[in-house]
Amino acid sequence: MKVSEQLNILEPVDHAQRLARVFDLMEANGFDSMIVNINANIYYLTGRVFNGLIYLSLATRTAYNFVRRPNHLTGENTYAMHKPENILQIIDSEGLPALGRTAFELSLTPYATIQRLTKALGTEIAGDADAVLRVARSVKTAVEQQLIAECGIKHERVYRKIPGLFREGMTDVELQVEIERISRLEGCIGQFRAAGTDMEIHMGSVLAGENADTPSPYDFSMGGRGMDPSLPIGADNSIIQHNTSVMVDTNGAFNGYMTDMTRTFAVGNLGELAERAHQVSVEITHRLGEMARPGAKASELYEEAMKMATEAGLAEYFMGHRQHAAFVGHGIGIEINELPVISPRSRDILAVGNVIAIEPKFVIPGVGAVGIENSYIIGEDATRCVTNAPEQLIQLQ
Amino acid sequence: MKVSEQLNILEPVDHAQRLARVFDLMEANGFDSMIVNINANIYYLTGRVFNGLIYLSLATRTAYNFVRRPNHLTGENTYAMHKPENILQIIDSEGLPALGRTAFELSLTPYATIQRLTKALGTEIAGDADAVLRVARSVKTAVEQQLIAECGIKHERVYRKIPGLFREGMTDVELQVEIERISRLEGCIGQFRAAGTDMEIHMGSVLAGENADTPSPYDFSMGGRGMDPSLPIGADNSIIQHNTSVMVDTNGAFNGYMTDMTRTFAVGNLGELAERAHQVSVEITHRLGEMARPGAKASELYEEAMKMATEAGLAEYFMGHRQHAAFVGHGIGIEINELPVISPRSRDILAVGNVIAIEPKFVIPGVGAVGIENSYIIGEDATRCVTNAPEQLIQLQ
Repeated sequence: MKVSEQLNILEPVDHAQRLARVFDLMEANGFDSMIVNINANIYYLTGRVFNGLIYLSLATRTAYNFVRRPNHLTGENTYAMHKPENILQIIDSEGLPALGRTAFELSLTPYATIQRLTKALGTEIAGDADAVLRVARSVKTAVEQQLIAECGIKHERVYRKIPGLFREGMTDVELQVEIERISRLEGCIGQFRAAGTDMEIHMGSVLAGENADTPSPYDFSMGGRGMDPSLPIGADNSIIQHNTSVMVDTNGAFNGYMTDMTRTFAVGNLGELAERAHQVSVEITHRLGEMARPGAKASELYEEAMKMATEAGLAEYFMGHRQHAAFVGHGIGIEINELPVISPRSRDILAVGNVIAIEPKFVIPGVGAVGIENSYIIGEDATRCVTNAPEQLIQLQ
Repeated sequence: MKVSEQLNILEPVDHAQRLARVFDLMEANGFDSMIVNINANIYYLTGRVFNGLIYLSLATRTAYNFVRRPNHLTGENTYAMHKPENILQIIDSEGLPALGRTAFELSLTPYATIQRLTKALGTEIAGDADAVLRVARSVKTAVEQQLIAECGIKHERVYRKIPGLFREGMTDVELQVEIERISRLEGCIGQFRAAGTDMEIHMGSVLAGENADTPSPYDFSMGGRGMDPSLPIGADNSIIQHNTSVMVDTNGAFNGYMTDMTRTFAVGNLGELAERAHQVSVEITHRLGEMARPGAKASELYEEAMKMATEAGLAEYFMGHRQHAAFVGHGIGIEINELPVISPRSRDILAVGNVIAIEPKFVIPGVGAVGIENSYIIGEDATRCVTNAPEQLIQLQ
């Protein structure tokens, strides 16, 4: 029994928009073809993840899908493939265009896989397909923006329930587990997609009190010891103490896309410094949200954030205390670490269709992390916040 | 304020055993040095994950740690590094041995990272460090075996609570979320480590009824449609029906290691075929557990499983129905896909210290998946099952 299913499940207009952008960038980069085998990029180009690869040909401006698994996917320009070594023969027998100057996903695909692919396809490496796809994906189509907006609504619904989950004497992990549960019941798919081999996290971060000041190996905005040295990030099983903060930055992936949102909760009195820092974070977030218009330099957003933190006398706590993160925002979409990057050395220029998270946070010794994070869609006429849960410090009791 | 912390947190004897094995394998492979930058391997060699790399030198049989983040790690043979381009200068100024014939993690590290590392270190690629580390890691030290056994105890405790989580009319995702919750409260770290870029899953798989027969792109034993085409594996939000099975194969990672365990639950009457197939799965598992002794060929275990399934008239349902998995077991440890591989073409020979999961499962059309999975530690005197929850079909009601 073989039940077939259409491979490409993107809406036709959306699919055409994505491909047009990719092919234009390929042309600008001088690539005749690109070979795509990373799951996030396969999902971007077809609306689903499959095992195999996509051959993008500029000559025909067509995506050819070579599928190893699952075995029931069919459709236009879709070919079953046992292994990459079969592809040249399929190209030949089906009369597909020759590869020419071929780019591969060099920043994400393992070295041995690239070696195997170039050998199987009888081609040299002409350049990095990741660079093209990262730029293409940084400008979201209308459908992608809609998916992200839907994440925001569900994400917000989860955050509004957080105060009701707190019980006196619970640990940070216990609180996180209850947040995970309501997120999942709201439809969160769980997986937290980050490009590359370095970043690992489970369902986001709940940082309570002093633990927020523990440096971590990852390129996230905040640290935390984690439950185990094999995953040193976030909650560390400590009991949530009076007069400390609880920062919640959990997974907003409710479809193949995600929003990124942080809110801070207070248990008791955080003191003047932490309360002021939280307020400055809200102000920086709003200010950067206003600045995030087409044509703005990402580096200027960072500089403005740093300037506001410094003028408030909070520079030493900004983006960490014992260890500082070197950015204040980042693109989001299918993955948590997309373009543009809001950092001092970023050369990115904001554009219509970018979706960015802005997260100017502070770590106050003895109190914990404070601040917020919102996700913004940069539109033609306005920049729209899609994470609209209350921003003030909310008491947990 | 800078609080320092010891980088290497392995027990000295355990650390020495791991390094001795790696250096012996490096010598056998003709490598003078290896550069290790993949998180799972960094964890194996030091007991923690950090951002940076480890330079293993056969000349001195020493591991030199180059740390980019976190910024508070110190200790013997440990050097702060801003970027890989600093390493040669540190090697020079600290009088560390020259690199010589250097292996890199070619199967896991992105192509562009390998290019950068070889350039920064001024060296050619002498071979694949993954191959060495995969073989080294396949033989667990006493400490590793203890960590895995501890996972088994907690994993088992979770599985015993599953019947109490079921409510009439709930969806597969709702049941999975409650299992995730008790797993996390039992100490599960959440993250499901799999080597490579292809495999993705959130906290394991709950497969109810017909959904078990949906082929998936991943190299897991079973499929399932998943909640979203961006992560097409496992539960798909369908209501758990009467007279169908619920197979639970969820995350056993309670420290940096994991066990792998599957149990099947019945809602009502599964019928003779499914009940018999479940019983055959239990028998195959026990038989393979007995065969799993030092010196046994992994391929012979697979052949025995296939023979037993065929003799029972169940070959068409074995390891899937619409799509079949090509293995019946696999090594486990830090990751879910370690050596040895129990497949027809495997050349692996079982050895003392291997830890394997055996999962001879069946998918019965109209009923769902049945069967079990256990994790075994292959000891000098005996092979020990570490996942001892009840194996029979358990009624959910």
